[in-house]
Amino acid sequence: MNMLVDGEWRVDAYESTTDDGEFDRQETAFRGWVGGDGVREGANPDPDSAFSVEPGRYHLYICRACPWAHRAAMTRALKGLEDVVSLSLVEPVRIDDGWEFSEEYPDPLFDEPYLRDIYTRADPEFTGRVTVPVLWDKQEETIVNNESREIMRMLNVAFDDLAERDVDLWPGEHRQEVERLIDEIYEPINNGVYRAGFAGSQAAYDRAVNELFDALDEYEELLGDQRYLAGDVLTEADVAMFVTLVRFDHVYHTHFKCNRRAIHEYPNLWNYTKELSQLPGVAETVNVQHIVEHYYRSHGDVNPSRLVPTGPEIDFTEPHDRARLPGGPPADLADAAAPADD
Amino acid sequence: MNMLVDGEWRVDAYESTTDDGEFDRQETAFRGWVGGDGVREGANPDPDSAFSVEPGRYHLYICRACPWAHRAAMTRALKGLEDVVSLSLVEPVRIDDGWEFSEEYPDPLFDEPYLRDIYTRADPEFTGRVTVPVLWDKQEETIVNNESREIMRMLNVAFDDLAERDVDLWPGEHRQEVERLIDEIYEPINNGVYRAGFAGSQAAYDRAVNELFDALDEYEELLGDQRYLAGDVLTEADVAMFVTLVRFDHVYHTHFKCNRRAIHEYPNLWNYTKELSQLPGVAETVNVQHIVEHYYRSHGDVNPSRLVPTGPEIDFTEPHDRARLPGGPPADLADAAAPADD
Repeated sequence: MNMLVDGEWRVDAYESTTDDGEFDRQETAFRGWVGGDGVREGANPDPDSAFSVEPGRYHLYICRACPWAHRAAMTRALKGLEDVVSLSLVEPVRIDDGWEFSEEYPDPLFDEPYLRDIYTRADPEFTGRVTVPVLWDKQEETIVNNESREIMRMLNVAFDDLAERDVDLWPGEHRQEVERLIDEIYEPINNGVYRAGFAGSQAAYDRAVNELFDALDEYEELLGDQRYLAGDVLTEADVAMFVTLVRFDHVYHTHFKCNRRAIHEYPNLWNYTKELSQLPGVAETVNVQHIVEHYYRSHGDVNPSRLVPTGPEIDFTEPHDRARLPGGPPADLADAAAPADD
Repeated sequence: MNMLVDGEWRVDAYESTTDDGEFDRQETAFRGWVGGDGVREGANPDPDSAFSVEPGRYHLYICRACPWAHRAAMTRALKGLEDVVSLSLVEPVRIDDGWEFSEEYPDPLFDEPYLRDIYTRADPEFTGRVTVPVLWDKQEETIVNNESREIMRMLNVAFDDLAERDVDLWPGEHRQEVERLIDEIYEPINNGVYRAGFAGSQAAYDRAVNELFDALDEYEELLGDQRYLAGDVLTEADVAMFVTLVRFDHVYHTHFKCNRRAIHEYPNLWNYTKELSQLPGVAETVNVQHIVEHYYRSHGDVNPSRLVPTGPEIDFTEPHDRARLPGGPPADLADAAAPADD
């Protein structure tokens, strides 16, 4: 994820650290909102400019490697929004010029070479971080939003009536709890792996990795008694957790030195990861090859050889044991996920 | 391990690779022999200069981090040669000037600052690799040998009469088999982890890591049916295997990208590793802190941040299950290793 600094695109702005070596993730820039419901604080600063809900009007730019982009792609898949919001990929490896399109992963809207060109189409003066996911409005030709948590929310709320499946990942009675959970897992887990991997000092690394594994231990225990993070029902919080867990053993464990324990060594977290990856549409959003290529080959400052390790022998399609717990996925997902009788 | 090239000490000579990216370990230089038995081919080119077997005459310079040095230290411990061959350590972290002494780990013989000074005391014209272990002759003030396999053999054979314990790691009926086994595990396992970690191309890495895990799978199966590599009796081959296995999960798995599987995930290899580490004297030769500090902090070209990961939650002192198999350690080791009755 690169950044325009003094007229030059700098890719290293991504891995910036503070004076005491802490990884410092910078904020996203576009905070527009589709529809009028579920608007998050700080988003949609100008309510008059709200984008209307229409099938075919919006496009998602993502990278299959990126956990933040994965939140959007997974929500789209779970709800069955494939025909409502179009989607395209960028190349998994991000070198000097940031996220880029290619012959294999072209820009379907403008045939631009780089994702930064999409940002400058939205705002010619743009100088912030060029990140995925990007929710693009084909009608106004601008970026609606590039904050993964807000795109996930919009896909869930605004496009609910257009979705193929009846899947509400932010159900009324759990709304506050879901917000709390997404907040709670962000710093130690979702961002924690990056804080460990990009730490600029041993003290910053130690702090990050201790917080990470303390949090994983806590959720391992919680998921021993309940099926999902918010209880019996699948929510956005599970999407936010899953995108980190599914990458953990292949990249965070080795590349980001989070090697105290692998997710497949936590019985509950591992079975939970397998259950989520086996829900309809989800496996298609997980591309392990893109994940390993991105991390090992993009971060030359962490892995100078840019060699891609063989990775652990784990199988997300193995049977899981989560049906032992009360609750389960919404009926539209459970029916499709149920094993055939014959 | 540094090397004198054109009058300058170069540390990077250690991690040299061939044109197609294969890690290329250079040969050791001193091949003298203590006593007249068990001389290996290529060693002791001048039999008239054989060193006589005497208690107190020889000194071992080792690093607790180094698996090759560990072969010598472990053989010395298993046989109980602590009062016969003295031993000292170098600093675990090896930076620009190669292995060095320090206030904590001084040179007890000459108070030299660097291990290379010991090499040039033995041979003022020395220009090869400065490695551990070094078997030093205090009487002739020279290096007898710096090849780990030969030092292990000499400690076992030449010093047998002086050893506190009756432990023969190269027993008559298994001699050929032990030689074959040490040869067989060297390239895919002992050196295989280095070939993976220092590979200069993806093809070289893939080759090394595939050979490594094929070999580990093979020995996992073998050790399901027999207690040690050569069958019922403990031999030098087990020492050679152990020094790699005991480092694997902390350093080779993460730092050298050998992350297909951890040793603690192989039931037989893991129980075998625990049994060996619980034999009398062996735990004292394993210093995990020195191991992780050495690898993560010495190899800036593999780990530019030089951060030391937290490491896996594994415990070499946990009970092992190897007593289910026929055979066992020599009586002198078994008695000491047996749990107290009361």
